[in-house]
Amino acid sequence: MLKRVGVIGGGQLARMMIPPAIELGIDLGVLCENPDTSAREACVLVGDYRDVEIARLFANQFDVVTFDHELVPQEVLRELEASGVFVRPGPDALLFAQDKLAMRETLQLLGAPQPLWAVAHNENDVELFLAKIEGSEVVAKTPRGGYDGKGVRLISDKAGVQDWLAHGPVLLEEKVAFEREVAQLVARRPSGDIAAWPLVETGQSNGVCTTVVAPAEVDEAVHVGAEGLATLIAKSLGVTGVLAVEMFVLDSGQIIVNELAMRPHNSGHVFTELSVTSQFEQHLRAVLDLPLGSTKLVANHGVMVNLFGGVVRDSLEAALASDSLVKVHDYGKSARPGRKAGHVTVIGSDAADLLRIAKMAASVMALDGLA
Amino acid sequence: MLKRVGVIGGGQLARMMIPPAIELGIDLGVLCENPDTSAREACVLVGDYRDVEIARLFANQFDVVTFDHELVPQEVLRELEASGVFVRPGPDALLFAQDKLAMRETLQLLGAPQPLWAVAHNENDVELFLAKIEGSEVVAKTPRGGYDGKGVRLISDKAGVQDWLAHGPVLLEEKVAFEREVAQLVARRPSGDIAAWPLVETGQSNGVCTTVVAPAEVDEAVHVGAEGLATLIAKSLGVTGVLAVEMFVLDSGQIIVNELAMRPHNSGHVFTELSVTSQFEQHLRAVLDLPLGSTKLVANHGVMVNLFGGVVRDSLEAALASDSLVKVHDYGKSARPGRKAGHVTVIGSDAADLLRIAKMAASVMALDGLA
Repeated sequence: MLKRVGVIGGGQLARMMIPPAIELGIDLGVLCENPDTSAREACVLVGDYRDVEIARLFANQFDVVTFDHELVPQEVLRELEASGVFVRPGPDALLFAQDKLAMRETLQLLGAPQPLWAVAHNENDVELFLAKIEGSEVVAKTPRGGYDGKGVRLISDKAGVQDWLAHGPVLLEEKVAFEREVAQLVARRPSGDIAAWPLVETGQSNGVCTTVVAPAEVDEAVHVGAEGLATLIAKSLGVTGVLAVEMFVLDSGQIIVNELAMRPHNSGHVFTELSVTSQFEQHLRAVLDLPLGSTKLVANHGVMVNLFGGVVRDSLEAALASDSLVKVHDYGKSARPGRKAGHVTVIGSDAADLLRIAKMAASVMALDGLA
Repeated sequence: MLKRVGVIGGGQLARMMIPPAIELGIDLGVLCENPDTSAREACVLVGDYRDVEIARLFANQFDVVTFDHELVPQEVLRELEASGVFVRPGPDALLFAQDKLAMRETLQLLGAPQPLWAVAHNENDVELFLAKIEGSEVVAKTPRGGYDGKGVRLISDKAGVQDWLAHGPVLLEEKVAFEREVAQLVARRPSGDIAAWPLVETGQSNGVCTTVVAPAEVDEAVHVGAEGLATLIAKSLGVTGVLAVEMFVLDSGQIIVNELAMRPHNSGHVFTELSVTSQFEQHLRAVLDLPLGSTKLVANHGVMVNLFGGVVRDSLEAALASDSLVKVHDYGKSARPGRKAGHVTVIGSDAADLLRIAKMAASVMALDGLA
């Protein structure tokens, strides 16, 4: 039985894998960018994950290597695989979370619902797409490296991406008039089993997730469709571990794939309290090819509110005092405007009420205040 | 705000404080007996807690010192207090969990229901008590150092405790004909607030807890009485942190205090999954004088089954495969007959069904097999 998991990247996702690893008796170690990262408690090596020698030195201590983020270069991933380490998710799957253009091309082959899109190699391509969609604005994305609204622009003419085109192709997408944004999380183990949590609704501000309400209050057909779509993607792309499929829901109820993430995801934090199995425990079980846990909910609803900018010094006391149901997750990070520094969750029976409670607690803890 | 907690003792109770400390952003460090203890992940010093200098060196790094066990000598506790560290629970309270004679005397003053008891200084005292209770057998206990059935004997004559009497007084108690054994857990913070979980029923084998069913299936009056009694004890003794009151329930429904523990307790492990706030998180919040969390249950029932002797190598896979609801807690200990090496819990709606599921998982994981 595989038992040792190395996580590349020392952010909060690696940090939140530590508790389930301790409970399950799994040996977890983290390759950290610096000794003061969020997951420092489990740091076994400090170094640059882009350096093959560092990555190999780290990976050799573990049965399986997985990730806190999707930034590890393909060359490094393939070197690790060649050296005999299980890389989960593997480079072939992870590519689709690293490269938005590769994702769009493959989802098209799968027949997954997507926004209209095109790849622009030059300004002429941009003009053609603007003409085709007959809209005033287009969403432009750098295929790689974007996250939390970075690497994404709304443009209305070719000048808007001139600088990006100098460095390579740009992904263009129609601006979808959606009713809400949702995320479907599933986990898949290498032997094939898949477990899905209920669809959640994400609240966004400037392209960054600020709140989550679970389950999403949408028609049953949307739940079924989203789960089916995420399951199809997980299987077809050979994903192992947690997969998050961010989607738009249109007025008509139609769902459209926005982005993919192949790791525990901000939209799934609420399941730590709301589900029998958290996404962090499930990710560890999945990458170790262990049987997956139940995704049953333990309350009717749960909400999550992110803490941005940093955690106000000594605010834990006031946050806990605000309501005895509040669960606080502090990522142990230094302050920086816009940074995700923690989150709070509350579970119970009335979603609106829970959101009010969580926001009250978050408002006293978040340095940036509420979005 | 206090934020740094030092735990004396590196057993599983210290280990299970690590996950909530990570989530809440609390700095937790452990004084371990050896570098390979259960709580080694948070070990900051290896040494003997009976050595005042070691204890002081450790405690100086923290705002508050608390415990994995109740074996720290009073002299050490008082030295730490004198050096300016908050010791929680404090030595005055902890004495009643360290010394069963002191506990009986104080509970008598409080008017708490107890078995008939006496202190024996010599064999004559033993004969007098045997005559008084008119029973064939008496429970004899060493006032200090006993746990999990150790330091407890059933005797029918004075010869049964001759060896113990040579070393000091012996506590004698009538053997109570009880219908079931239960435990009431509460947590109290220094500023006075108290939170109580529902009463649980413990299954015992040879004086050791093997299973827990929560909530206990007893009349509402028993629940109310047990909570009131534990609350009275916590307040009157000035307990801070988690207090476990082990009790007998008689056929008549009357409750009688058996033992006290002032730390997270085996009977409360089930609340990690069953309650909004686990006993480990609550203990940290209580000793830091932070607002206590809700003790609301997230399912109708929960059960816990201990794993004795060690965890069978690579048995995690079979345990998780046995039912997707099973939650495994592996204490990371080497094997030794009778040793508590882990536990499993399951929450849901039918207690008998949950117990069957938990026992099946435990049977594949426990080296000693099921009791």
